[in-house]
Amino acid sequence: MRNVKLTLAYDGTNYHGFQEQRGTGLPTVQGVLEKCLCRLAGREIRVTGAARTDAGVHALGQVVNFDPGAWAIPADRIPLALNGVLPEDVAAVHAEEVPPGFHARFSARAKTYRYTIFNARIPSPFWRRYSHFEPRFLDLEAMAAAARYLRGRHDFASFQAAGADTKTTVRTLFEAEVTRTEELIFFTFRGDGFLYNMVRIMVGTLVEIGLGKRPPEEIKAILEAGERARAGPTVPARGLCLVNVEYD
Amino acid sequence: MRNVKLTLAYDGTNYHGFQEQRGTGLPTVQGVLEKCLCRLAGREIRVTGAARTDAGVHALGQVVNFDPGAWAIPADRIPLALNGVLPEDVAAVHAEEVPPGFHARFSARAKTYRYTIFNARIPSPFWRRYSHFEPRFLDLEAMAAAARYLRGRHDFASFQAAGADTKTTVRTLFEAEVTRTEELIFFTFRGDGFLYNMVRIMVGTLVEIGLGKRPPEEIKAILEAGERARAGPTVPARGLCLVNVEYD
Repeated sequence: MRNVKLTLAYDGTNYHGFQEQRGTGLPTVQGVLEKCLCRLAGREIRVTGAARTDAGVHALGQVVNFDPGAWAIPADRIPLALNGVLPEDVAAVHAEEVPPGFHARFSARAKTYRYTIFNARIPSPFWRRYSHFEPRFLDLEAMAAAARYLRGRHDFASFQAAGADTKTTVRTLFEAEVTRTEELIFFTFRGDGFLYNMVRIMVGTLVEIGLGKRPPEEIKAILEAGERARAGPTVPARGLCLVNVEYD
Repeated sequence: MRNVKLTLAYDGTNYHGFQEQRGTGLPTVQGVLEKCLCRLAGREIRVTGAARTDAGVHALGQVVNFDPGAWAIPADRIPLALNGVLPEDVAAVHAEEVPPGFHARFSARAKTYRYTIFNARIPSPFWRRYSHFEPRFLDLEAMAAAARYLRGRHDFASFQAAGADTKTTVRTLFEAEVTRTEELIFFTFRGDGFLYNMVRIMVGTLVEIGLGKRPPEEIKAILEAGERARAGPTVPARGLCLVNVEYD
């Protein structure tokens, strides 16, 4: 049995998320990828994704693995073959053979997400698909200070979508940074795992701090409370991008 | 009579060009803008654009002028009002009162266009709407050297779409530059006027030079010939952007 690790980039605007929702007919990145692999390989191929990105969320480095079976193509030729048949909003970036035990989701050691806010008086027609527009003044120092309280090992229950069911809500954030380049504010989070909507709720909370509605140190109390209602709103999906997934 | 100068940015992907094609029902930037102005002003407003950008061509700084008539809004409030009703792929950037004699097209002294090529092995889902994808090696030095022959006052008849009808095909390019930032190659042209498809044909010719199919100095012979057939192909619209329009 072969096992191929494939890295994908995609513009998630026109997809109902990464994960295929069988029987619904909704377009998903996994569905499109599996259809293209089937077309090339002449048989059905199912892929396993590292992260279940939501509708409208983008990726620069989503990772999947699959068994190409009888499809006798060297792994390094797969991106070129796939890019010939994939739609323009999905690109195969890299492929390599990996040991049979490699699992895109369970073998992952860290993931990095980036959230982008377009912070200017006038919205940008070019960034609208890839950022959330916020015209009000955002205090970068306050948001960066607040992000430092998110770093480390915490129970992130307050930053999980209400109703989500997870065995443990403890996660470790290795990095939590807020930086600015002209009109763009980037929120970068690197962690061992993320709860459902966690990045979008963290950013929604940091934005309230940036607007001066809460002080940076309130993050500590929100983490301690363990209640979704204590954190800020969930910012829109379009600003979110899965940057990469790391493995041993 | 009032006269308002309005600067617009737009993603041209979903439009059949800037100029309204009355009676066709095709979506145009001018059509959308006039509809929004009418909604705000309560009466029909017609605008005059500086450049008739083609289907799929973008703008960072298109300029229009119009008479707001009885619509008693201060010019500096127009962008905010318009951005509340314009679709997300069009943005009003700036507005100011100008003398009655100002005409967006005839008063223009220079325009700057930028063409973007995404030059990498793998296409980018994020740049696909705003660039032309070319995976082959492009010799930047050769293209920059060729662009220098385009600078200045020339008869650009060879770089005009076949069948176009213009009084004179003499234009002056104040700047013609080729630069690279990571995977992106930018072709920047600033001139007193541009013939139909001129930028896209100049870039198509420079690409042939970058691919090594022609030497840079062939530009001189192409200019002298005055025949469309001597120049290279017309590159796709999606890579083209009207950066700004200058006035006295």
